[in-house]
Amino acid sequence: MDLTAMGDALNTSWILLGAALVFFMQAGFAMVETGFTRAKNAGNIIMKNLMDFSLGTPIFWIFGFGLMFGGTGALIGGIDLFTTGGEGGWATLIFQTVFCATSATIVSGAMAERTKFSAYCIYSMIISAFIYPVSGHWIWGGGWLAQLGFHDFAGSTAVHMVGGVAAFVGACILGPRIGKYDANGNARAIPGHSLTLGALGVFILWFCWFGFNGCSTVALTDGAAEVAARVFVTTNLAAAVATVTVMCITWVRYKKPDVSMTLNGSLAGLVAITAGCDVVTPVGAALIGIIAGFVVVFGIEFVDQKLKVDDPVGAVGVHGLCGATGTLLTGLFAYNLENDAGAPAGLLYGGGFHFFGIQILGVVSVIAWVAVTMTIVFLILKNTIGLRVSADEEMMGLDQPEHGLTSAYADFMPLPHVLGTKAGEAAAKAAMAPSAPAAPAEAVPVSRVTTEGASASMHKVVIITNQSKFERLKNALNQIGVTGMTVANVAGCGMQMGAPEYYRGAKVDATLLPKIKFEIVVSAIPVETVVETAKKVLYTGHIGDGKIFVYDVVDVVKVRTGETGFDALQD
Amino acid sequence: MDLTAMGDALNTSWILLGAALVFFMQAGFAMVETGFTRAKNAGNIIMKNLMDFSLGTPIFWIFGFGLMFGGTGALIGGIDLFTTGGEGGWATLIFQTVFCATSATIVSGAMAERTKFSAYCIYSMIISAFIYPVSGHWIWGGGWLAQLGFHDFAGSTAVHMVGGVAAFVGACILGPRIGKYDANGNARAIPGHSLTLGALGVFILWFCWFGFNGCSTVALTDGAAEVAARVFVTTNLAAAVATVTVMCITWVRYKKPDVSMTLNGSLAGLVAITAGCDVVTPVGAALIGIIAGFVVVFGIEFVDQKLKVDDPVGAVGVHGLCGATGTLLTGLFAYNLENDAGAPAGLLYGGGFHFFGIQILGVVSVIAWVAVTMTIVFLILKNTIGLRVSADEEMMGLDQPEHGLTSAYADFMPLPHVLGTKAGEAAAKAAMAPSAPAAPAEAVPVSRVTTEGASASMHKVVIITNQSKFERLKNALNQIGVTGMTVANVAGCGMQMGAPEYYRGAKVDATLLPKIKFEIVVSAIPVETVVETAKKVLYTGHIGDGKIFVYDVVDVVKVRTGETGFDALQD
Amino acid sequence: MDLTAMGDALNTSWILLGAALVFFMQAGFAMVETGFTRAKNAGNIIMKNLMDFSLGTPIFWIFGFGLMFGGTGALIGGIDLFTTGGEGGWATLIFQTVFCATSATIVSGAMAERTKFSAYCIYSMIISAFIYPVSGHWIWGGGWLAQLGFHDFAGSTAVHMVGGVAAFVGACILGPRIGKYDANGNARAIPGHSLTLGALGVFILWFCWFGFNGCSTVALTDGAAEVAARVFVTTNLAAAVATVTVMCITWVRYKKPDVSMTLNGSLAGLVAITAGCDVVTPVGAALIGIIAGFVVVFGIEFVDQKLKVDDPVGAVGVHGLCGATGTLLTGLFAYNLENDAGAPAGLLYGGGFHFFGIQILGVVSVIAWVAVTMTIVFLILKNTIGLRVSADEEMMGLDQPEHGLTSAYADFMPLPHVLGTKAGEAAAKAAMAPSAPAAPAEAVPVSRVTTEGASASMHKVVIITNQSKFERLKNALNQIGVTGMTVANVAGCGMQMGAPEYYRGAKVDATLLPKIKFEIVVSAIPVETVVETAKKVLYTGHIGDGKIFVYDVVDVVKVRTGETGFDALQD
Repeated sequence: MDLTAMGDALNTSWILLGAALVFFMQAGFAMVETGFTRAKNAGNIIMKNLMDFSLGTPIFWIFGFGLMFGGTGALIGGIDLFTTGGEGGWATLIFQTVFCATSATIVSGAMAERTKFSAYCIYSMIISAFIYPVSGHWIWGGGWLAQLGFHDFAGSTAVHMVGGVAAFVGACILGPRIGKYDANGNARAIPGHSLTLGALGVFILWFCWFGFNGCSTVALTDGAAEVAARVFVTTNLAAAVATVTVMCITWVRYKKPDVSMTLNGSLAGLVAITAGCDVVTPVGAALIGIIAGFVVVFGIEFVDQKLKVDDPVGAVGVHGLCGATGTLLTGLFAYNLENDAGAPAGLLYGGGFHFFGIQILGVVSVIAWVAVTMTIVFLILKNTIGLRVSADEEMMGLDQPEHGLTSAYADFMPLPHVLGTKAGEAAAKAAMAPSAPAAPAEAVPVSRVTTEGASASMHKVVIITNQSKFERLKNALNQIGVTGMTVANVAGCGMQMGAPEYYRGAKVDATLLPKIKFEIVVSAIPVETVVETAKKVLYTGHIGDGKIFVYDVVDVVKVRTGETGFDALQD
Repeated sequence: MDLTAMGDALNTSWILLGAALVFFMQAGFAMVETGFTRAKNAGNIIMKNLMDFSLGTPIFWIFGFGLMFGGTGALIGGIDLFTTGGEGGWATLIFQTVFCATSATIVSGAMAERTKFSAYCIYSMIISAFIYPVSGHWIWGGGWLAQLGFHDFAGSTAVHMVGGVAAFVGACILGPRIGKYDANGNARAIPGHSLTLGALGVFILWFCWFGFNGCSTVALTDGAAEVAARVFVTTNLAAAVATVTVMCITWVRYKKPDVSMTLNGSLAGLVAITAGCDVVTPVGAALIGIIAGFVVVFGIEFVDQKLKVDDPVGAVGVHGLCGATGTLLTGLFAYNLENDAGAPAGLLYGGGFHFFGIQILGVVSVIAWVAVTMTIVFLILKNTIGLRVSADEEMMGLDQPEHGLTSAYADFMPLPHVLGTKAGEAAAKAAMAPSAPAAPAEAVPVSRVTTEGASASMHKVVIITNQSKFERLKNALNQIGVTGMTVANVAGCGMQMGAPEYYRGAKVDATLLPKIKFEIVVSAIPVETVVETAKKVLYTGHIGDGKIFVYDVVDVVKVRTGETGFDALQD
Repeated sequence: MDLTAMGDALNTSWILLGAALVFFMQAGFAMVETGFTRAKNAGNIIMKNLMDFSLGTPIFWIFGFGLMFGGTGALIGGIDLFTTGGEGGWATLIFQTVFCATSATIVSGAMAERTKFSAYCIYSMIISAFIYPVSGHWIWGGGWLAQLGFHDFAGSTAVHMVGGVAAFVGACILGPRIGKYDANGNARAIPGHSLTLGALGVFILWFCWFGFNGCSTVALTDGAAEVAARVFVTTNLAAAVATVTVMCITWVRYKKPDVSMTLNGSLAGLVAITAGCDVVTPVGAALIGIIAGFVVVFGIEFVDQKLKVDDPVGAVGVHGLCGATGTLLTGLFAYNLENDAGAPAGLLYGGGFHFFGIQILGVVSVIAWVAVTMTIVFLILKNTIGLRVSADEEMMGLDQPEHGLTSAYADFMPLPHVLGTKAGEAAAKAAMAPSAPAAPAEAVPVSRVTTEGASASMHKVVIITNQSKFERLKNALNQIGVTGMTVANVAGCGMQMGAPEYYRGAKVDATLLPKIKFEIVVSAIPVETVVETAKKVLYTGHIGDGKIFVYDVVDVVKVRTGETGFDALQD
């Protein structure tokens, strides 16, 4: 074996290490997206993350790779069906496959908790087959941007911004989750169900980013190892500094250092440094980290509160905005370091406006490409098979209606999620209106209640019903003046039977179902009113509508005022 | 340093990378097995996964390695106590150790939730010391299968099928978990407690499989890097295609894409491609993935529903059946690729039946070897220290009786697991029969109840007792006609004292214990009957038997029908 | 490219792989520390783990690296602000950065659940900037210990013991968590909220330790690859044997194999082998593992129960004691293996007392250095901005007061943590005393209660209040003789408004708040006494004090004795 062959083997090992690490980012994305959303959608989100990779792998092999690398045309590569990886061989194929999948998986976060699974599978395949490969060809496949000298080392634009722009378009067209904005259009927090898993995801991503950026030298020989080492330093430094920056910003703006936003800050720094990690100094990397920190906080707020685009995990801010930012900043901070003979020089280091202009041109072009094509894709899906689940399915969580999964956490009973009392956008209203058709019009007299004597003035009403009725019932009770109530998760054992659900092919017993239990104590409001209101809201005519129990109450004490009885129940 | 020494160093680094990745599969298995089973056994499952590796490492070093690689006999290697890794040196020792541990850890999944911890430790050591090394010697140590030309590149048979067959034998001899099959022998779903962690485990395994297969070239020089790159591609492609295949099958068969089965699909593809990943084309890999997808779905159904062997995580289907399948398919799909001078050719590529026949012979021989030896091992264990925990311990979950761990999730209260009302296999019956010996024979009159006047006709009975009584009490109440009840987890603060439990050496306070609370409202069924039934079922004479409370109910409304009072409580 | 350059590239790739793996230890530490502590602090612990790395990275780059490697003085290195990594270049910088961060992150575990976040950020920066670099210079930077021949290959002392000693000093100065020791000073268990995540963390750490130790050869050429392979073997073997040892010890001492202590055992073995992993034989490694197993069990017990220093995750035992033990044992077990020309020989292999004496000197010196400086740092912090949160904040969990995070698990309702009834240390007392200032002095008559007739003798009192009142109320009820109660988590929907909390910049709705619900049935104890006691304890005058409900009880049955009514309620 000669020295050249040895060098090739060494370089191949570096690419393969990178491929494995970039694959593992799928685990990171899955944990971040699941942890930052609600337990009732956990199975669905996992499934989406798994499927975008599993569908993207064969699709990219069959079509995408050829479009991206199968020729040197300005706009597209060529046709290389069932590729063998071209000149770069198998190592290049696997390396490029995992990058493609990263881009596709970003979209799922912004569209989480309301997108149809079938639509998801389709648009994810389109991204891997066509959208990503075309702009990828422009940048990395010898296309027109590459020819102009556009510099995007490991994919701030080619991977992250492509994903982020698609995510933005998708979230716009989908509309916000029910309950995300109140009647006045103010954004409301919908906290994630496991920040611990979300944080694990961020750590996994950071770890894998050493492969994403570091192994993008795709070589170790002839000075590339030195570049890779510097890339490790700049990548890590930008991430760390962005994290610190975001922590400080949230500490000032929200009075306390915000956990989940700071976790986004790490990702912001990583995304932003990706374009220029090979051509900036550590000082440049730190500055890029600081800027990314500002961009992600104000960007997420802007998208969430001004544009009113609901992006549950911050994918647009992190991947879209910081991807663009990082690419542009490369035009400012690129520095001719030793070992980088042909590297571009940024505006701040005397490189002139030319290189910076090309960076701007590249960002704008790719935004346009992705925005236009993905708008078409999403609109076609919306008007054919539909892009969004029904409001009822969304309220219930996608795990059950989309996958027949009662809960991703079978031994725990997740709480129906907290929404304010004035949730008012159209979708929610439609979903939560009392189901008019068949509610029994005549009030069934609740006769015993009024004959109870002394304690008749105070009753406890206990309502046990499906968790999906939570919002609707709470709102209806609020409207008749019930302002205090206690809610708990219980399991109801009844005789109910529904359509059989399968878990791994075995039928799921339907004898113990998650239910929600409301306890309300009323005095001024007649118990009949409460019972009738609950009946109207809960009635569908199907098994599982629930039961209402009425009990006597001997006394009530409001601790703060010391009031008892009737008085204790008034606000 | 000369070129050869440099090549050796490069190759060593590849083996070591592989060793680290294959070690990390332990984390993947731990998460998959824990996530797919119930919260009450989580500590036990973790412990088993930790201990099979920790016991296997020294055992394999002392005994197993020598048996496997310490000579070139047809049947066994030799004796090389406290090995230094033989010719391959330390890198070979660590690399082979982590493969051995993978095989051992597979068994724990199929036998989860009911196997004695002490028995587990013993049979796990026997697998690492003897069972795995012997068949491993046949295949990789120069034994008779190796001499015949049997091809199992990274261990579809040597590692996975060995684990899968042992798992099958163990699950057969153990018998199913209580409640897994109903009175008619129909399989019932027992959903896992965290599909999120299960999915994380699958992603970790997939990531590490790049090391398992890719680094099994155990070299990078002399063309090996090219092979490794192709192995990355085929491994990834088979996994992705198998995942897609399983998703489609479950979508058709169960009407919805099943999350946990699809996760098994990824592992099925990975196991199946392992034998031939170095000698198949990407198209071959994709076909193997498709076939593995079918095998795993129908295989798991067959084991679960026809053979009625209870394998909680699908280890038999994934590792046993797909391990065999992948090895056999190598005999069909092996293709003489460039760089693979001596590689075998499969039946479909003109290799003739000879090679395929050897693959069949190898699979059958290894099945026979493992099945016979493990049957002996399990039967000896069963008849000496016992293989299975008591039914009471199983109902309670193994964490408490086996490890003194109240819960692996101390701040949450997992729900006692859902079982149908007609659970009827012998073990469960025995476990759940009212404890006859000392139940007070005379009915204690519940005098106050019948003197309550107007509302006497409806009562709420609240029963607070140990979570382990859940099944038994629910069944008993069903038998007296109580069909509706509400169950919740509560924490009981009492004066109860039991045997002290230790957590990290500090005594666990016994003042707040997880309890279960039943709420039943009855009218037609006399409250005395409910109380007496509960007393009989719950009575043991020990502290902690629980309390029963009776309350008046003013009214009940059944929402679906609008019925109130007595009528609302009838089915 | 020549052979030397190729070798350099290969060596650089090994260092970079190590850097990535050691970075990933942050995920392991985060999971271990979070999993072993309570859900109410999960967000805070994550944040601390994230920030020590994110603050440490720029700090070490700017200051620390220079102090450690910027010169060859006996005591400190030099000044090398904004270093480029010196002679070792960028690869050395990133490699050393992640080691530094490991040391810093260890401290957070021992000080978990009660340390102020702001104080944490400050002392963590001081460790990275100054404490760690100085002793690191002594050992690895050419300082006086290095010159004497002190051997600490990958940092048993330089990294782990430095962290462990700082952890010990911090935990001492902080004092124990409220409820950790009872009135007699006996340690009580405070179980972690997710042993599954804790176990995942241990698996991640073990995986990454192959990088920590194995890649500390910082080369592969000239025989280094062989050493690295041996390091993999010794590291793995010590960890496995230590795990087995701890399992056996706990099985004997606590009657059952303890899950969380056994997990600590793995880490103990890893820490202990780190100093001598390159110079001991596998047999030596196994012996070191056995000794580490004993040290960690008895060490944790000693710290916890004798010294009464509260170290929630066992960081002092694992990193401090086993770090010291491993360094000292290197002085006994070091063996001149082939390929290790200049390696030291331990006392047991004829190396004489000289080398062992230097190991002792090094350990003692570093303990003294860290103990003195960190005592100063912690005392200054304690007396300026404060080191510990208030008792109220601690009871509530740090997530809410420190980060405005209602819960890291928004869809679940973690249980208020279990504390015994006699919790008595000063801090807890102060925190839990009835808030004297404004409690209404005159007893509000609970008039209705006494006029209820027949069933007046038994009442159910239901108290719904803030979770933070749990301890206080339980203790007060115990004092008036209420010994049985049932506690559940509920969500209260009220009109309460507090200071707005932000989650990712969006306001968190305050309409559904986690509450705790006590249910008490009394007969001998007058219901007025219960109500008055609860009022006194709960009263603050602010919204959210809670409500008390009184109900009639028809009957009660104590299952164990068959007693009913009044008798059933007596102990």
